[in-house]
Amino acid sequence: MAKIVECIPNFSEGRNQAVIDGLVETAKSVPGVTLLDHSSDASHNRSVFTLVGDDQNIQEVAFRLVKYASENIDLTKHQGEHPRMGATDVLPFVPIKDITSEECVEIAKTVSERINRELGIPIFLYEDAATRPERKNLAKVRKGQFEGMPEKLLEADWAPDYGERKIHPTAGVTAVGARMPLVAYNINLDTDDLEIANNIAKIIRGSSGGYKYCKAIGVMLEDRNIAQVSINMVNLEKFPLYRVFETVRFEAKRYGVGILGSEVIGLAPAKALIDAAEYYLQIEDFDYGKQVLENHLLG
Amino acid sequence: MAKIVECIPNFSEGRNQAVIDGLVETAKSVPGVTLLDHSSDASHNRSVFTLVGDDQNIQEVAFRLVKYASENIDLTKHQGEHPRMGATDVLPFVPIKDITSEECVEIAKTVSERINRELGIPIFLYEDAATRPERKNLAKVRKGQFEGMPEKLLEADWAPDYGERKIHPTAGVTAVGARMPLVAYNINLDTDDLEIANNIAKIIRGSSGGYKYCKAIGVMLEDRNIAQVSINMVNLEKFPLYRVFETVRFEAKRYGVGILGSEVIGLAPAKALIDAAEYYLQIEDFDYGKQVLENHLLG
Repeated sequence: MAKIVECIPNFSEGRNQAVIDGLVETAKSVPGVTLLDHSSDASHNRSVFTLVGDDQNIQEVAFRLVKYASENIDLTKHQGEHPRMGATDVLPFVPIKDITSEECVEIAKTVSERINRELGIPIFLYEDAATRPERKNLAKVRKGQFEGMPEKLLEADWAPDYGERKIHPTAGVTAVGARMPLVAYNINLDTDDLEIANNIAKIIRGSSGGYKYCKAIGVMLEDRNIAQVSINMVNLEKFPLYRVFETVRFEAKRYGVGILGSEVIGLAPAKALIDAAEYYLQIEDFDYGKQVLENHLLG
Repeated sequence: MAKIVECIPNFSEGRNQAVIDGLVETAKSVPGVTLLDHSSDASHNRSVFTLVGDDQNIQEVAFRLVKYASENIDLTKHQGEHPRMGATDVLPFVPIKDITSEECVEIAKTVSERINRELGIPIFLYEDAATRPERKNLAKVRKGQFEGMPEKLLEADWAPDYGERKIHPTAGVTAVGARMPLVAYNINLDTDDLEIANNIAKIIRGSSGGYKYCKAIGVMLEDRNIAQVSINMVNLEKFPLYRVFETVRFEAKRYGVGILGSEVIGLAPAKALIDAAEYYLQIEDFDYGKQVLENHLLG
């Protein structure tokens, strides 16, 4: 079985179509890697690519993309709403199949070493690849952004994990990491009261005392005039979909509010959904690897 | 994307290990086809193989298996508890991915034509491939078994779909068909009263007025001292898992009996389980083909 890894590089370019096209072409240049999706946002001036492939080829395509970005994106001229510090701003690797989180950390380190050696871009390792607790959180790593990085790299605690204490003049600094698959999941409430969604989001999210692997905010869906709890599921093994759904359901009940429905945004691993089927159908002793037919077809 | 087809040939040999080994070897002889599972039952004197592969190679391996069986299994000497009429008794093709039921009917016909032309075995098409309503049901097609087939083939309504009105002297007659994926699914009740399981089975199964695509019986799990509703899900698109689970739940409630759990026996297609997640999580507008990550990795 091939070890399957997902890679989701974020580039600081969301406006120049020629550069975006070049990134797409580069993303498709390595056999064994599929470009699942890419989207560009002009106001953020940022593009997010989703690639998936075996553990070797994914490293090659990641390097080629960082190289292309370093040659074609100039951070000294970059403006956009989204915080950023590098031409390739973040480069996370995610275990998908027959590979552990630890192996993805090794991939992150191998790619980081090569990026720094061949392109001269300093690297911070983040999330599961972080070398110190305060570097786990991407927002902390990126604080100061491109403009503040020259100074930040000179601070005692902020020597990069790879490279010297100075930025690449135009490509800045890149954060390379490993993390669990993340699913964007929204639950729509049968109410137009945003405060209810906000209250529930606060209850369930880890940062305010809820579930550790849950990020959540309340948002208003103006076109449907309903409030939504918008969630990032950051560890589907330790915090599955059914748990957040049932928790939101019983918290909403306090207000006499029901659930209209939920939304999976973008891609989700089959296992995240099948775990929910196992729970609700009370399936005993289910062996995901052996009993799901498609698992015998891959690689 | 490769078109993926499952094939589940049943052979009238469950005792002679040399012949079973030969079938296994033949099953593995075509690249692009995986032997997912095979099991042999001595009292039935029968073996069931499960293969999966692309739409072309699956036809080749199916033919090779029928040929091997015709050369190594002699029905004139066969005894066993399970009804049978041929060395390869039944040969169903099941659509798994990016292929329709109609295309599997075409595969069944193409393979049947070749089997008859090269091996001289007469063929009945059954289930979705049947050419007349009374041939849909395998039990009706096989009635009379190997010993009764010479006479049956001469009856007005029972000319084979391929071949002359006479059996292959040792390999008999084979039924070739196409059908939807089938899942064996059991629901365990919190009672030791078999009659409750029998009553619920009768309510839900199509043959006694329940759901058309449901087969069910009550059985006693002696080791756990609980009654079980044992179900065959014969069309998961039209009769999904959540529907039988919820129906058994509300029917059991009449007796004050709860559900202890359920069991998926053997393999199930990912979509059958993800459909249940969609129902229970009330997911809006979910696109199975596009939103399940693994669907972008296959073929």
